[in-house]
Amino acid sequence: MIYLDNAATTEPNEKALARAVEFTKKNYLNPSALYGGAVSSALKEARESIVSKIADPAQFELVFTSGGTEADNQALLTCGRRNVVLSAGEHAAVYEAGVHLKNGGTELRLAPIGKDGSADPEKLLALVDDRTSLVSVVHVNNETGAVNDIFRLAEQVKKKNPRCVFHSDGVQAFGKLPVRLTKDVDLYSVSSHKIGGLKGTGALVKRKGFALQAFLHGGGQEGNLRSGTENVLGALDFAYAAEEKFKTLKEDFARLEGYRERLWQALDKEIYRRISPPNGSPYILTVAAQGLRGEILQRLCLEREVIVGTGSACSSKKPYSRVIEACGYGKDLLNGVVRLSFSLRTTEEEIAAAAQALNASAQELKIRIG
Amino acid sequence: MIYLDNAATTEPNEKALARAVEFTKKNYLNPSALYGGAVSSALKEARESIVSKIADPAQFELVFTSGGTEADNQALLTCGRRNVVLSAGEHAAVYEAGVHLKNGGTELRLAPIGKDGSADPEKLLALVDDRTSLVSVVHVNNETGAVNDIFRLAEQVKKKNPRCVFHSDGVQAFGKLPVRLTKDVDLYSVSSHKIGGLKGTGALVKRKGFALQAFLHGGGQEGNLRSGTENVLGALDFAYAAEEKFKTLKEDFARLEGYRERLWQALDKEIYRRISPPNGSPYILTVAAQGLRGEILQRLCLEREVIVGTGSACSSKKPYSRVIEACGYGKDLLNGVVRLSFSLRTTEEEIAAAAQALNASAQELKIRIG
Repeated sequence: MIYLDNAATTEPNEKALARAVEFTKKNYLNPSALYGGAVSSALKEARESIVSKIADPAQFELVFTSGGTEADNQALLTCGRRNVVLSAGEHAAVYEAGVHLKNGGTELRLAPIGKDGSADPEKLLALVDDRTSLVSVVHVNNETGAVNDIFRLAEQVKKKNPRCVFHSDGVQAFGKLPVRLTKDVDLYSVSSHKIGGLKGTGALVKRKGFALQAFLHGGGQEGNLRSGTENVLGALDFAYAAEEKFKTLKEDFARLEGYRERLWQALDKEIYRRISPPNGSPYILTVAAQGLRGEILQRLCLEREVIVGTGSACSSKKPYSRVIEACGYGKDLLNGVVRLSFSLRTTEEEIAAAAQALNASAQELKIRIG
Repeated sequence: MIYLDNAATTEPNEKALARAVEFTKKNYLNPSALYGGAVSSALKEARESIVSKIADPAQFELVFTSGGTEADNQALLTCGRRNVVLSAGEHAAVYEAGVHLKNGGTELRLAPIGKDGSADPEKLLALVDDRTSLVSVVHVNNETGAVNDIFRLAEQVKKKNPRCVFHSDGVQAFGKLPVRLTKDVDLYSVSSHKIGGLKGTGALVKRKGFALQAFLHGGGQEGNLRSGTENVLGALDFAYAAEEKFKTLKEDFARLEGYRERLWQALDKEIYRRISPPNGSPYILTVAAQGLRGEILQRLCLEREVIVGTGSACSSKKPYSRVIEACGYGKDLLNGVVRLSFSLRTTEEEIAAAAQALNASAQELKIRIG
């Protein structure tokens, strides 16, 4: 089986998992107990190790969460009031949290995105005013791979309204793109299972000194910013998986960029239209098959032992993607979206086989529907 | 080392963990993807298996959460409005969520508790009126082991106000006491790491048909009640650990009840006063050392290779326990609280050694402070 839906989730790194399991078995004490020093130290190390991968630990710290969704929800729901500006390309965890705010009376302003899913900086900035409490812009669009220049955006937002919080969902960027957080980014969400860690762990990276509010209330763990007994296994495994992933970040980036282009070149251009930009994340190639259904293409590829995605796994219950619709495509393309996403274990042979499967599946489907 | 703080967290069941890790390594696909059937089925089985341990799966279902704290927060924060009634003996995850509601304008009514930490049903019911949105009463008090008759309470609450939601934090009851949820209980929180599962997993058990609202917003997982990629390892491990724990629930109950009494008998009555009731959870014996500091006793016991608790690990940053204070004890006892909590692996020899360590530590401390 060839697995090309690594943006939905990817294979756990065995070395990282074994290491974390081993520690947890021997050190199961409650890290917040007075005698829980060893566990608490390991957590502290994990925390600093993860932060150091994308920021100066003197300037940034993190709060462990149960995943990217909770990190996004904490940012949106504790910072959002008056009006909130999002790009129309946000992940469901940001967008639906925004809708929840809207239901509670906050004004939700959606900035338009381009054909490739990237935010339009000028149009986004035009929506920011003195009453804007929060701007949230995804770093790498999970459905198209488009990369937003969040650092420039954050700077511009802060220039316009210095009290406005700037948050970015960095789930598809962390461990895949070189990232260095700047002082204008207040909050940044990351997730473990997208880079070889376990599902159920993520973090909200925060600028030191930023007055984040708690989202989960209780025993006061995580500096009173996230109550609940710490998920020690998940947190350590996240740090270990990140260590592994960052080791080869640059080589993976270059290699996968090549694969992405090779895959695109091998696809039948009579059928497939490219949605992903050429300068996007090398981990994602999103295409749309004109007049065909992505879901059925996915099933036909599965019969050919190739697993492809159809946009966000999270929103598999919806007929088509809100984000791809916001890119401005009509229904003939919207229904035919296929997302191909890679991991560091993806091979050249898999890329060639996947292209064949995608082309053959589309041909089969075209014949079927006449 | 003798570990008697199992109510804070307990040793992971190796068999359950190995089984869950094994499954997860081979089945890492996203359970919410169209092709994620095998993982999604395993989650469904885990879900039903956990529910069946404490309720009729035809009448109850569950939402996996990141732990007891999130389950409690979801119950409180999505159901609480107008006025909310809690016992003064609630865990921090319920109490602090209640305080958060209060800060938002909800009236918080705290029902008094007795010397052993148990809720007074009459006084609690007197606080419930037509405008009460939620009553939350802990099943087993985590600081004293007192067991509340939540089933009778729920019935009485519903008789007085049928629209009022009844929630109970069952974290210290699940897998330790025989529990059978009745139709008057709408929501019941459980946690995995208290019974040999991993930290970072819990569930909010709900009556089928009860219109629970989402707390985390996003991709719509868990029937749209808890977004975020499912923590597959944590959920399966929870189910497997519960299977193991429930196998010997009755024998453990009887044996530990004996140990608890033996431990109490062996403690120096000139120093220790019992807070736990005789009919409470057999897993918890809470005592207070008159005029001594629990924290220092804990350190002195640690030197004797016995780990004891000082109330809730979660609230280790506070000077003394809000709950024990609400039981009506003065500061001479409040500061001297020691919680001894057992697991199915606790032995008779450990009980005897722990009593010796507690007595000797108290004598040492008394001499030190003159």
